[in-house]
Amino acid sequence: MRLRHKPWARETLAAHPDIVVAQPERYRGKWHMAFDKSQPLYVEVGTGKGKFLTEMAQKYPDIHFIGIEKYESVLLTALERVKKAGISNVRLLAQDVAKLDHFFAEDELDRLFINFTDPWPKNRHERRRLTYQSFLMQYQYVLNPDGEVHFKTDNRGLFEYSLQSMSTYGMAFHDVSLDLHKSGLEGNVMTEYEERFVQKGLPIYRLEARFTRGKVGALYKDYKN
Amino acid sequence: MRLRHKPWARETLAAHPDIVVAQPERYRGKWHMAFDKSQPLYVEVGTGKGKFLTEMAQKYPDIHFIGIEKYESVLLTALERVKKAGISNVRLLAQDVAKLDHFFAEDELDRLFINFTDPWPKNRHERRRLTYQSFLMQYQYVLNPDGEVHFKTDNRGLFEYSLQSMSTYGMAFHDVSLDLHKSGLEGNVMTEYEERFVQKGLPIYRLEARFTRGKVGALYKDYKN
Ligand SMILES: C[S@@+](CC[C@H](N)C(=O)[O-])C[C@H]1O[C@@H](n2cnc3c(N)ncnc32)[C@H](O)[C@@H]1O
Ligand SMILES: C[S@@+](CC[C@H](N)C(=O)[O-])C[C@H]1O[C@@H](n2cnc3c(N)ncnc32)[C@H](O)[C@@H]1O
Repeated sequence: MRLRHKPWARETLAAHPDIVVAQPERYRGKWHMAFDKSQPLYVEVGTGKGKFLTEMAQKYPDIHFIGIEKYESVLLTALERVKKAGISNVRLLAQDVAKLDHFFAEDELDRLFINFTDPWPKNRHERRRLTYQSFLMQYQYVLNPDGEVHFKTDNRGLFEYSLQSMSTYGMAFHDVSLDLHKSGLEGNVMTEYEERFVQKGLPIYRLEARFTRGKVGALYKDYKN
Repeated sequence: MRLRHKPWARETLAAHPDIVVAQPERYRGKWHMAFDKSQPLYVEVGTGKGKFLTEMAQKYPDIHFIGIEKYESVLLTALERVKKAGISNVRLLAQDVAKLDHFFAEDELDRLFINFTDPWPKNRHERRRLTYQSFLMQYQYVLNPDGEVHFKTDNRGLFEYSLQSMSTYGMAFHDVSLDLHKSGLEGNVMTEYEERFVQKGLPIYRLEARFTRGKVGALYKDYKN
């Protein structure tokens, strides 16, 4: 993600508390209160400029969408998109995905999207990949037991890694596609990055996954004891 | 696999009992007796004309290799290769893989190769795919707990299916490659089909997998009660 320094970003985000939620910990376990009603909750991690999130929200008005992006200057574009679309079922968080369990309670989410996340190809950066096991543990914690992870990327190495990481964590795959735009999947909403790679004729990898093992691990202790 | 009717195939196979094992049930649980000594046992299912099996056996003399191929006319070519190579660590079975548990005892194998197996793309033929769950159950039965399945194919649909089928069965992947010949894997031995597809510039998909769940199922009852 190319970053331009935008000193006014923070101010503009703060001026839209109806869309950009500051201190999201406040809504942990009660996100319906940040919206006007109770609806299934889908989260996109690493939202970027918000094309996917906004178009999905327009397409599925009966779902609440939350986008998480750590760079304020990038989230600014997402905010502009949401405003322009005039929709009320989107919230944006200028936050780090590593803190997901601070923002959502156990079982609170119905679906989680990971789209074209940074590949971090060096072995020593493995822990930064959003499909590293510490992130999977968080996703399992915040997703309800029927919840799904939907993941797509152009990056072959990241997809190979994620197949390994997710299967080793006990996740079962369905609707795997190793060339999304030749597979005839209907209703695909493209992200910004996806449009760029598809234009170059590169294959897009995609999968849906569920957790099959029982929830275990440190997170649960933190919140349950 | 293009089949030519070769009426002499059965006779020729029968004339080489040192390599082609008739009634492999005899050796169930004691395959070292079909060889001259005790060594790790690797099996290839759907061996075809035996290029991979023969070259692997030449490369790894400290391993015993068994190839299973249901068409006698195809296995004939494998027999000729093995004879020509003058190696003693290969055995061939003119059998159906569906009967794997008749030929091998629980935990008897160390590794199992599935190379370019027939994709059976129609949904109603799912059960014929060598990565369908009934086959996975057999593989788990005959492999020891540290045993691995190594699978490669040119067929995108079959690989997508197998990722789903295997992960749903609780298998964990490692060394996944979505374009084997661009991935820099060393020591890859090509099969007949692989050579053909690589010449055409098509990507080869490959994975290694282990079973992570305990063995369960009907097979164990059959043999244990
Ligand atoms: C390569 S961009 C893709 C953006 C968008 N999803 C798309 O497909 O067009 C990845 C985005 O994820 C964000 N990101 C990466 N790791 C993150 C984390 N731990 N927390 C929040 N955002 C993160 C980056 O800042 C970047 O904007
Ligand atoms: C497409 S060919 C590939 C041959 C070889 N493995 C290669 O990569 O060149 C698949 C082979 O598997 C064999 N085969 C498929 N299903 C089988 C089964 N259930 N039992 C034994 N052989 C089988 C077919 O007869 C065929 O020779």
